[in-house]
Amino acid sequence: MSTPMKEEKVFKDPVHKYIYVQDQTIWDLINTKEFQRLRRIRQLGTCFLTFHGAEHSRFSHSLGVYEVTRRIISQFERNQYEDWPKEERLLCLCAALLHDVGHGPFSHSIEKTFGSHHEEWSCRIVLGDTEVNQVLRRVSPAFPRQVADVISKTYHREIVVSLVSSQLDADRMDYLIRDAYFTGVNYGTFDLDRILRVMRPYQGHIVVKESGMHAVEDYLMSRYQMYWQVYFHPVTRSAEVVLHSIFQRAKKLYEEGYRFQFMIAPLHKLFQQQLTVDEYYFLDEAFMQTVLMQWSLEKDPILSDLCSRFLQRRLFKYITLERIDTQLMERLGSLLQSFGIDPDYYLKIDFPSDLSYDVYRPGEQDEKLPILLLDSKNTLSEISCKSEIVRSISGIHMGKYHLYYPHELLLNHLQELDADVRILLGLS
Amino acid sequence: MSTPMKEEKVFKDPVHKYIYVQDQTIWDLINTKEFQRLRRIRQLGTCFLTFHGAEHSRFSHSLGVYEVTRRIISQFERNQYEDWPKEERLLCLCAALLHDVGHGPFSHSIEKTFGSHHEEWSCRIVLGDTEVNQVLRRVSPAFPRQVADVISKTYHREIVVSLVSSQLDADRMDYLIRDAYFTGVNYGTFDLDRILRVMRPYQGHIVVKESGMHAVEDYLMSRYQMYWQVYFHPVTRSAEVVLHSIFQRAKKLYEEGYRFQFMIAPLHKLFQQQLTVDEYYFLDEAFMQTVLMQWSLEKDPILSDLCSRFLQRRLFKYITLERIDTQLMERLGSLLQSFGIDPDYYLKIDFPSDLSYDVYRPGEQDEKLPILLLDSKNTLSEISCKSEIVRSISGIHMGKYHLYYPHELLLNHLQELDADVRILLGLS
Amino acid sequence: MSTPMKEEKVFKDPVHKYIYVQDQTIWDLINTKEFQRLRRIRQLGTCFLTFHGAEHSRFSHSLGVYEVTRRIISQFERNQYEDWPKEERLLCLCAALLHDVGHGPFSHSIEKTFGSHHEEWSCRIVLGDTEVNQVLRRVSPAFPRQVADVISKTYHREIVVSLVSSQLDADRMDYLIRDAYFTGVNYGTFDLDRILRVMRPYQGHIVVKESGMHAVEDYLMSRYQMYWQVYFHPVTRSAEVVLHSIFQRAKKLYEEGYRFQFMIAPLHKLFQQQLTVDEYYFLDEAFMQTVLMQWSLEKDPILSDLCSRFLQRRLFKYITLERIDTQLMERLGSLLQSFGIDPDYYLKIDFPSDLSYDVYRPGEQDEKLPILLLDSKNTLSEISCKSEIVRSISGIHMGKYHLYYPHELLLNHLQELDADVRILLGLS
Amino acid sequence: MSTPMKEEKVFKDPVHKYIYVQDQTIWDLINTKEFQRLRRIRQLGTCFLTFHGAEHSRFSHSLGVYEVTRRIISQFERNQYEDWPKEERLLCLCAALLHDVGHGPFSHSIEKTFGSHHEEWSCRIVLGDTEVNQVLRRVSPAFPRQVADVISKTYHREIVVSLVSSQLDADRMDYLIRDAYFTGVNYGTFDLDRILRVMRPYQGHIVVKESGMHAVEDYLMSRYQMYWQVYFHPVTRSAEVVLHSIFQRAKKLYEEGYRFQFMIAPLHKLFQQQLTVDEYYFLDEAFMQTVLMQWSLEKDPILSDLCSRFLQRRLFKYITLERIDTQLMERLGSLLQSFGIDPDYYLKIDFPSDLSYDVYRPGEQDEKLPILLLDSKNTLSEISCKSEIVRSISGIHMGKYHLYYPHELLLNHLQELDADVRILLGLS
Repeated sequence: MSTPMKEEKVFKDPVHKYIYVQDQTIWDLINTKEFQRLRRIRQLGTCFLTFHGAEHSRFSHSLGVYEVTRRIISQFERNQYEDWPKEERLLCLCAALLHDVGHGPFSHSIEKTFGSHHEEWSCRIVLGDTEVNQVLRRVSPAFPRQVADVISKTYHREIVVSLVSSQLDADRMDYLIRDAYFTGVNYGTFDLDRILRVMRPYQGHIVVKESGMHAVEDYLMSRYQMYWQVYFHPVTRSAEVVLHSIFQRAKKLYEEGYRFQFMIAPLHKLFQQQLTVDEYYFLDEAFMQTVLMQWSLEKDPILSDLCSRFLQRRLFKYITLERIDTQLMERLGSLLQSFGIDPDYYLKIDFPSDLSYDVYRPGEQDEKLPILLLDSKNTLSEISCKSEIVRSISGIHMGKYHLYYPHELLLNHLQELDADVRILLGLS
Repeated sequence: MSTPMKEEKVFKDPVHKYIYVQDQTIWDLINTKEFQRLRRIRQLGTCFLTFHGAEHSRFSHSLGVYEVTRRIISQFERNQYEDWPKEERLLCLCAALLHDVGHGPFSHSIEKTFGSHHEEWSCRIVLGDTEVNQVLRRVSPAFPRQVADVISKTYHREIVVSLVSSQLDADRMDYLIRDAYFTGVNYGTFDLDRILRVMRPYQGHIVVKESGMHAVEDYLMSRYQMYWQVYFHPVTRSAEVVLHSIFQRAKKLYEEGYRFQFMIAPLHKLFQQQLTVDEYYFLDEAFMQTVLMQWSLEKDPILSDLCSRFLQRRLFKYITLERIDTQLMERLGSLLQSFGIDPDYYLKIDFPSDLSYDVYRPGEQDEKLPILLLDSKNTLSEISCKSEIVRSISGIHMGKYHLYYPHELLLNHLQELDADVRILLGLS
Repeated sequence: MSTPMKEEKVFKDPVHKYIYVQDQTIWDLINTKEFQRLRRIRQLGTCFLTFHGAEHSRFSHSLGVYEVTRRIISQFERNQYEDWPKEERLLCLCAALLHDVGHGPFSHSIEKTFGSHHEEWSCRIVLGDTEVNQVLRRVSPAFPRQVADVISKTYHREIVVSLVSSQLDADRMDYLIRDAYFTGVNYGTFDLDRILRVMRPYQGHIVVKESGMHAVEDYLMSRYQMYWQVYFHPVTRSAEVVLHSIFQRAKKLYEEGYRFQFMIAPLHKLFQQQLTVDEYYFLDEAFMQTVLMQWSLEKDPILSDLCSRFLQRRLFKYITLERIDTQLMERLGSLLQSFGIDPDYYLKIDFPSDLSYDVYRPGEQDEKLPILLLDSKNTLSEISCKSEIVRSISGIHMGKYHLYYPHELLLNHLQELDADVRILLGLS
Repeated sequence: MSTPMKEEKVFKDPVHKYIYVQDQTIWDLINTKEFQRLRRIRQLGTCFLTFHGAEHSRFSHSLGVYEVTRRIISQFERNQYEDWPKEERLLCLCAALLHDVGHGPFSHSIEKTFGSHHEEWSCRIVLGDTEVNQVLRRVSPAFPRQVADVISKTYHREIVVSLVSSQLDADRMDYLIRDAYFTGVNYGTFDLDRILRVMRPYQGHIVVKESGMHAVEDYLMSRYQMYWQVYFHPVTRSAEVVLHSIFQRAKKLYEEGYRFQFMIAPLHKLFQQQLTVDEYYFLDEAFMQTVLMQWSLEKDPILSDLCSRFLQRRLFKYITLERIDTQLMERLGSLLQSFGIDPDYYLKIDFPSDLSYDVYRPGEQDEKLPILLLDSKNTLSEISCKSEIVRSISGIHMGKYHLYYPHELLLNHLQELDADVRILLGLS
């Protein structure tokens, strides 16, 4: 099924040193236009506005996920573990490589406004009339379907799904280390080699030898720290808030029949939520940044202002709230309104933990496959039964509400603000 | 002149750990729209097509150059060196931060085709009606002019110029390490701390204590390796060649009155070589990538094909030549022509060392300020008088000619090729 | 009081890059014979038998503690914090440098057997007739006493003591990173620069800005992991157990009047617990290893066997017990006895957490100065009130009992062992 | 011949992350007393007195050389290169592991004074009545002889010898990186993974693909820098000079019948140059440091002084000379004599490059197997024919003479020194 290459190819990678390509199918997939498009999508969305090093693409990350998967499988094969279904190797590698192929620019804000989902797009690209699909069909006619099943977590064999998508999967193992490397923070470092060494296929699951528990604890702590220090950083969130306001405003204008000076394909289709796979290809981050740049010249003052803010990094300031105070929101909303500032776009509550991110919390609804420890007597236990550290992280509910608003605009209205509002917003 | 900030601010940086901002002027410059624009210009142009990690921006690099300069000056001040003109501190820092502010997207190809120059643009931004200029004028009315003089190397004090632009300047010290970090290669690592420790202001020059000679040798070797392993990598050069063909074709079409389907501001002005500073702001890399994407849909088959090649990384192959063989070129040109392939865009000679890059070669025309060693008796000598290693690198002329061509197109014409051409192009 | 050096001196250090010496007193202290002696004491005792890289000395670590302290103070001075008592700078630096100067070889085992204590020895060296004392007295006659007070934590100013000895002190910050570097494990890495940046002198305490809480959490997690992964590693503990048996046996023999073939100064005095400072100087790790080597030739079979075991790394095996089972111990003891193996030296219970190590546990008796967070309203809170992570680590009681025994000797007596003992010891 | 282990074992290593043991023979060799003894021999002799981190042992290095060899062979096997003699795998691994097993403490000085040689000792240990020999004989009766042949470079197959001992061998590849890691300098870093990837077995040689030439250049530059920055550092050399004076003095005293207060086995045999393999085992670095410590109490003032100097790091100062000036030496010798200082021990010329170290110099007598490049047409060329960088390093003759003398003693005799001597020695 898999054709080995005449000679192994490598990519130089700052995180894994080298990424090794040994199968013609993988090589061909990397060279499709759909995969190359990932070079034009940043891995961390708006995070580069907080950590300027975070300019790496989903292309790099996707290669990394592939490489981690390759190393895990190579370890399984080298040790000839009987519970490893050897025939699934290429499927795992392809799914690992392609799991993010449907990611668009600034996914969170766009998906929130226009209701698409990157996982669905990945499947559409895998199954549609694409170069990716052609390469996969060369393996077998049923292969694209299988890859899509793994990506959408419906494949019949849990062990295959869990390599790409579980609480301890190649996806997270790559992005934690990679994002730490490019942002320059220390938090994402854990002993990847050691974790790979203690992973085992066992009765249809991927499990971890109990002796590796501390390494997994370390990985989970990294994840915890990365979420709260990097991914949920209030400045990054502020950029998301501005971006969401932009799309929300543009959508409103579009629905109201506003005549955009800049409105080229495939924008119409995006607004109409009718993008085809072919059109989706053109919707990369370079395109969206050009759109923002052009919209900063639009006549609508709100759209224009918000776009300039994003491009010039003049973001909203924030205050932290323990809970949502509806009365306060209404009062601030009225105030802004009275100053001619539309609170629909300029006053936003953000609550990091209600995102679909996944600090490790067994028991929650969106739960992924849990981490199982295998002890010397071949008993399996979920890790939080054994590790007090994991148990304690799991219970923690850290989210706080952040209220975002245009601080500098209020400076012109200091006189008109009550003392308590001034204190609340740090304007006194 | 300089207003210290109430509280030092920092940027997390993967290369220097932290970048420290202590002056209000620096903080304000970073927040101008012209400086923020550098986030949308990649530091290494097309190099990300060879080393996928090389996706970092000129924004990151410019902060880095500023930081290296700050550390050098801080060392000079801490040691109270008498030959250091303390009043030039802020000028050095601003020039360091802004030296690349005029960089456009894919500078080499665009400058080659349209005859602009990024250093000129830096000066135009510093002197023109810009946010940068406003911030600088707040220091003093003459200050923008001084910054521009340092950037264009005409400032009256060599010591100021040489911090930003010499054979051992903050610019190179940052980019070698930064580019090595993001590409993941080992070559760019040298002991920056040690070099900073052995630098001295001395009689109007920046010199290096002789005891630091080996550290400087190591830096020069890094530079040598980075040029030949990264910056002149044949695949990166191939992307440049394709890009140059694109702009060359577009210019030709424009001059011939071709009706582009996609031709928005400021493209017209670019073709007419009449861009204003305001228009230049819109010409970032996101814009140029969108242009390439849209042009891949143009009717002109050459322009469309070249753009797709670039975006999908289907670059030209190359062979190495010891010298330019005019006869061979003509013969290959005719062959391509006879297959319907226009050799003006599809057959290119590239000779890396005729670029304006600067492997250390004292004696050459474009020579920058040399590296001077200061011995214990306060005698100065140019480093290649003392170091055999430097002497030997300086003499080396490594450049070879590379001939780029569309290998895969020729596969359809194998029968029509003579045996020697087939052997030459590795098609036999 | 402090004489700055004409020119700053540096030591190249793998952990901090460079260690900067700026005071003549520090330079002179480093060059005393007592401080140079620390080159002959390993930082991690027997740990090199588990992690072969852990061969670094207390000399390196002591320089590191000095350097971390220097950087903290330098930050305090640069920011001109009013609550920092500037006049204590040199005292802090000297105490940081000298806090371990009294450490002997294999401290834990020797101190356990012979009842000395390294902190006392540090004070004796600071106050006694030594080169260190001479250097300190040159600062002022009272200075040695002050240094000794800081080391023994009785100095009247808490802020000075807490730099060198608290839950977040220069000592731990250096050793966690250094031990991680030399062993090669990942666990000890945290963002030292960030922690230094958020430390503040405040009303007689060293406190941490609340915004730095996550960095401190990361540091505490590192500490937790280093204790359980490195410092309490069962193989390292096994070497300690063997070492303790050696000294216990030698002491018994000495008290019984055994004629040692190798018994040179200052061994007699060690046994008699009457070492002078002059004699203590000779008791370094090279000496103790030579003693072990020579004692491996002694006629007493127990002493000789134990020494060979240690030198050739033939350590005891272990099993893990949830609690101490006196009956089991007695039964195993009798068994060993019946095979001619003396259980006093060959059967040992070890319980890591009853050592004086300090996983962060506020509320325990040996409690060090806690970590205080300073919020934006200048309120102080102990960190575990704010951080759920810290709270959860603090409560964890992970210690398990390890039973050490000479596994390979029992293999000769398999027939004589009951089934349950065989199962318990993994001999079936 | 080789018995694979039931389960792969690993050692955590700071340089290679993990060292993998897959053969029972390797595991058994590591556990012999002779190999464990290497824990008590520092890899870099006196270098820790210059770079305090350089406290790592030959044990660590030997494991590293084994691991690099294992990775090279594993690459050869994975790619199924036909020119690789598979049956030599275990021999290569054993020779790599054991090549330094005969190293004694402070080898250079002791070998210079007492005329032994560490390579001979390695062979004696491999062939003698030792635990190492027993383990090897279990492979086959002829196996110890083969291992000894590889170590002494007389084995009939060049390809086996060259893995362990050539211009690009596992020995150097490990020590350059390891010594850089532990000293903390940058110089030793090169791309080991890349070099391993371009090595090929070819017609009985180990060769390098020409495309890897730059990586090899980088390795050779690292080597060059490490020699001149670390291994030949004048302070390290000064410690060697003092050490040599100590052994020279002790030998003289011994020959004159001086009654040493401290003279235990195996010192007598060392002086008589009649050490057996059993006695050699006791001669580790801990022993020699104890000897130096005890001799610092001897009555002979020269021996006592020199030992204290070494232990307390009060080394000789030096001046650099372009050539040996016999007249000057005689004059200085007489001067010292007239001050009661014996020039035989206190005035020494050192010329780094006359050591047996090996900056890469094809053409010299002690030449090791050269580095061969294999181009795409399967032609071999010695690297300096292709690389101007290598050619230029090869020709460089950097050695200068250093004159070592006890600077501080001369300060008492300033009046008695002529002006030119004072200037020469920097005493004016």
